[in-house]
Amino acid sequence: MKFSVDRAVLLKALAHVQSVVERRNTIPILANVMLAAQDGALTLTATDMEIAIVEAVPGVTVTRTGRTTAPAATLYEIVRKLPDAAKVELDHAGGDAPLALRAGRFATSLMVLPVEDFPSMTEGKLPHSFQLAPSLLRELVDRTKFAISTEETRYYLNGIYLHATEVEGQPVLRAVATDGHRLARVEEPLPEGAAGMPGVIIPRKTVNEIRKLADEAQDPIEVRLSDTKIRFTFGAVHLTSKLIDGTFPEYERVIPRGNDKILTVDKKAFADAVSRVAAISSERSRPVKLSLKQDSLTLTASSPDQGQAEEELDGGAVSYGNGPIEIGFQARYLADITDQIESKVEFRFADGSAPTVVVDASKPEALYVLMPMRV
Amino acid sequence: MKFSVDRAVLLKALAHVQSVVERRNTIPILANVMLAAQDGALTLTATDMEIAIVEAVPGVTVTRTGRTTAPAATLYEIVRKLPDAAKVELDHAGGDAPLALRAGRFATSLMVLPVEDFPSMTEGKLPHSFQLAPSLLRELVDRTKFAISTEETRYYLNGIYLHATEVEGQPVLRAVATDGHRLARVEEPLPEGAAGMPGVIIPRKTVNEIRKLADEAQDPIEVRLSDTKIRFTFGAVHLTSKLIDGTFPEYERVIPRGNDKILTVDKKAFADAVSRVAAISSERSRPVKLSLKQDSLTLTASSPDQGQAEEELDGGAVSYGNGPIEIGFQARYLADITDQIESKVEFRFADGSAPTVVVDASKPEALYVLMPMRV
Repeated sequence: MKFSVDRAVLLKALAHVQSVVERRNTIPILANVMLAAQDGALTLTATDMEIAIVEAVPGVTVTRTGRTTAPAATLYEIVRKLPDAAKVELDHAGGDAPLALRAGRFATSLMVLPVEDFPSMTEGKLPHSFQLAPSLLRELVDRTKFAISTEETRYYLNGIYLHATEVEGQPVLRAVATDGHRLARVEEPLPEGAAGMPGVIIPRKTVNEIRKLADEAQDPIEVRLSDTKIRFTFGAVHLTSKLIDGTFPEYERVIPRGNDKILTVDKKAFADAVSRVAAISSERSRPVKLSLKQDSLTLTASSPDQGQAEEELDGGAVSYGNGPIEIGFQARYLADITDQIESKVEFRFADGSAPTVVVDASKPEALYVLMPMRV
Repeated sequence: MKFSVDRAVLLKALAHVQSVVERRNTIPILANVMLAAQDGALTLTATDMEIAIVEAVPGVTVTRTGRTTAPAATLYEIVRKLPDAAKVELDHAGGDAPLALRAGRFATSLMVLPVEDFPSMTEGKLPHSFQLAPSLLRELVDRTKFAISTEETRYYLNGIYLHATEVEGQPVLRAVATDGHRLARVEEPLPEGAAGMPGVIIPRKTVNEIRKLADEAQDPIEVRLSDTKIRFTFGAVHLTSKLIDGTFPEYERVIPRGNDKILTVDKKAFADAVSRVAAISSERSRPVKLSLKQDSLTLTASSPDQGQAEEELDGGAVSYGNGPIEIGFQARYLADITDQIESKVEFRFADGSAPTVVVDASKPEALYVLMPMRV
């Protein structure tokens, strides 16, 4: 295998694929990236056995075809440190011979491992397919990701549940995540081809990788899936992931329907006030108390050794027309939700001890449920 | 005590003093800042028993004099989160009453501890005094700080040794730091008043604090010191520190005088090449080997499981006129030194196993000694 390529082009592709490689590996070849040079085309592949990423690299001059595998993180670090405009030449004589990289007066030989040992993830059939605009994928992820559980024992909550359903007769594609303390749910019109897809749980690491790739994407992203695997195609980048083999809880049952005490509040005023009153305590799990009266919201927090803090929100920022309520939430959970809300937050309360619904007033299909804390 | 002050003014002073406060304290009052409001003046004080910082805050409207102490980190966090243009009112009724802070519709009461229990660091007499331009203090610190030892057992190396001496009959103020593997030495013309000062070892934390304050300073910094304490005055900020009670080694004996094999090399080309070849190994302590021949420098590094890398420096970047040498250094140590060098690095070698001198060719009074590693 022998080819030359611009440093910037190679760096971009290596950045994508090395991101999937786990830093600590008990199986040495999983630390490697596979490089395959065929007629005028270079393909990079990396995997952690759960996710496989394959990227076709453009603008490569191949003078000898071939394949090998080399340490992904080291290769990435070296290419990153080459001068911007460098032309990089890679040469592998075959077999155990090291992979030689040259750029100007710099040269490195990297140990290789046999390409035959590189695990390939069989995709099987992916019968369902649809397209998603990059902005929609970003929205589905950003509005829900923070609520993914990190408890490994509840493995079926360690991802985003993506499924097709109907809302008032309209088909939607819905993303849901929950850690048992809060739930996030968002939906978009169902893309063509997604009807009949199974509900799938996309693991957290996959969510993070596709979110990064979506940032660079211009064109619609192709999604193909089966019961056990999902593949996202971002132009020349194909990311295939196993799905979490579990049953997502019947989340609809925890979304209260009858909460009729509505508070709307300016997002920035509310988020700033939460951050200020919560500063009284360095314990992240201490609650902020919301005290509601007619068109009035007061936030309070306290700490046994620091003192207490409160802020009354300006009447102009708050609209509330029901009876008094006192209710507490973790400051961080409130911040996670308001981070995703544009300008007006709508709270829907039942009382001071029941699950509360929060929506973005400008996009009520982005819905959050928060469990209160005792205050 | 009652006063009002602009949030920006209070924040700047709190940022300085809270930086000295240790986050984990076994003595609760050391987590507090002392606030003292006298006739039209507010003074903030914080200490960790090794360093005391006192800052006079301008533009304060005092309506009732008094003193108390409140949690420094919490007060800082709260003031930081107030709106930019806020006017802050602080009110302490005396005794155990909490310290009340108001800004607009935000209010907090902070637990206080008795001002009588706040430790005061007696300075004693500081008979030696001189002034130092902020740029000179920054230079003395930046050129040496990285070489300070972190080994707690060698406590006498855990700081910068500052002393007055003579170089070819000219009096100089010299800063030295070493961790036994490398040594950094820099000097400036001796400021007026510094003659006769004792050699003192300034602890690492004090070095970091004065370095931050020097960034904001415009006017000359006043330095006063005795055998046991040093005080730096940056306008309204006074930082007093204990000195390390130990004997700095006779460092002059480890600086080789006879190294006569001179390599000069372009700083950027050298630093970039070191970074690239060192990328072959993730172990930070592995050496980079320098191989020298007539006007030629080749850098190599290797890793048992990754491979090896080399770069030959362009003839235009290198000047060397002596016989072949091979010598190895830790990549990080080379990077620490080149970070402090303007444009040309001058190496002075004896042979491949002896301590090597490195100087900034444009400022040879900034001198470094590096112990080689076996390669």
